[in-house]
Amino acid sequence: MALKQISSNKCFGGLQKVFEHDSVELKCKMKFAIYLPPKAESGKCPALYWLSGLTCTEQNFISKSGYHQAASEHGLVVIAPDTSPRGCNIKGEDESWDFGTGAGFYVNATEDPWKTNYRMYSYVTEELPQLINANFPVDPQRMSIFGHSMGGHGALICALKNPGKYKAYDATYLVKSYPDSQLDILIDQGKDDQFLIDGQLLPEHFISASSEKKIPVVFRLQEGYDHSYYFIATFIADHIRHHAKYLNA
Amino acid sequence: MALKQISSNKCFGGLQKVFEHDSVELKCKMKFAIYLPPKAESGKCPALYWLSGLTCTEQNFISKSGYHQAASEHGLVVIAPDTSPRGCNIKGEDESWDFGTGAGFYVNATEDPWKTNYRMYSYVTEELPQLINANFPVDPQRMSIFGHSMGGHGALICALKNPGKYKAYDATYLVKSYPDSQLDILIDQGKDDQFLIDGQLLPEHFISASSEKKIPVVFRLQEGYDHSYYFIATFIADHIRHHAKYLNA
Repeated sequence: MALKQISSNKCFGGLQKVFEHDSVELKCKMKFAIYLPPKAESGKCPALYWLSGLTCTEQNFISKSGYHQAASEHGLVVIAPDTSPRGCNIKGEDESWDFGTGAGFYVNATEDPWKTNYRMYSYVTEELPQLINANFPVDPQRMSIFGHSMGGHGALICALKNPGKYKAYDATYLVKSYPDSQLDILIDQGKDDQFLIDGQLLPEHFISASSEKKIPVVFRLQEGYDHSYYFIATFIADHIRHHAKYLNA
Repeated sequence: MALKQISSNKCFGGLQKVFEHDSVELKCKMKFAIYLPPKAESGKCPALYWLSGLTCTEQNFISKSGYHQAASEHGLVVIAPDTSPRGCNIKGEDESWDFGTGAGFYVNATEDPWKTNYRMYSYVTEELPQLINANFPVDPQRMSIFGHSMGGHGALICALKNPGKYKAYDATYLVKSYPDSQLDILIDQGKDDQFLIDGQLLPEHFISASSEKKIPVVFRLQEGYDHSYYFIATFIADHIRHHAKYLNA
């Protein structure tokens, strides 16, 4: 479980770092990004995990979302893993933008030839948090998770399948069997998002299932916004504040 | 001078757009980015020009610097041009990262085969502002300029060679002959910037020349910061506020 530091850049008083390690779950080398806020110099901080969307690596969020200022101010360690195993030489892994490389969907594959490496669910909910807890100044009792697109859905399934772990593979299905209502979910959705217009996102199914189960969801349909990192950057501070409210309580 | 819109994304209530046009000065197609803050919907705004560093296109600043929030709040139209002509098929233009493509240095070349296309100084100080003034809701009397690395130097030479135009090819030389002290220059420099450590930046020459001429320069040596966009993102709001102070006065 040795960590190799790839880069380190000072940002808003803290350090944005990238590490590489050999993943046991994924059986390949993986990179992840971690931001250590100034507060991490003197004590343990809560850990907030970000899951990125299709085609992303650990770089997209840390270079494009503008999240550092809010993370620095709220004193949160933010971890952004890659979105799939890399370089596993599985036939077909690089043929489509939404399947295989860059498209792990935060699930554990159940079929050959994918099930050996494509175990992103176990990686982001078990292996990576253990690695982070063992090597960085974080409080394992205070962790939370958020994301965008494939990663927004990933964050929902990780939270819904692990009641209490974060203050499912189909989130709409999972929310129906969630044991209590101790969750506070904030979702922003761009109204001009082409994937929404094309009927690929179906947030109304999730809202309706959550509503039946009385799980509080704040769903904000943002006029004029699309699916891009410009949309993410606009609302990222709201989301970090949302998590900080519980993590720093 | 027809403008072709390449992209448009809503961001912090305004619109981040990219356009392409045929440049008269550079004799090639050029792209530039322009952010229209919410205030631009109802009236003319000041124009703030950003000049990027070596290897950049119009994309780097708009995707990585996190500048939109401050531009939106201060009501500034922000224009980010590319850093050189593109695709001119000049022998050697793509051989080095710091010469030719992506390395226009905001000067007008004086020698063949470069002088036909490499006229970035005229492009950013004349052609582009005329194009912006004619096509977007900006007030031509309120414009300012800033940048990073090659573009930070570019901003200094544009301002120093055009007294009064923005509220030179070697900035240190130019500042010595600047006619008055009606300039207020803010410079942030990362103390761990490898280019600084390698003696390639020499800010002390500029500071000393400005000081002799009594041109006010605030030079902040930022402990622990490097040359990257993480450094830029950390201090970008300070710089936008600095320009807004004069542009919105």
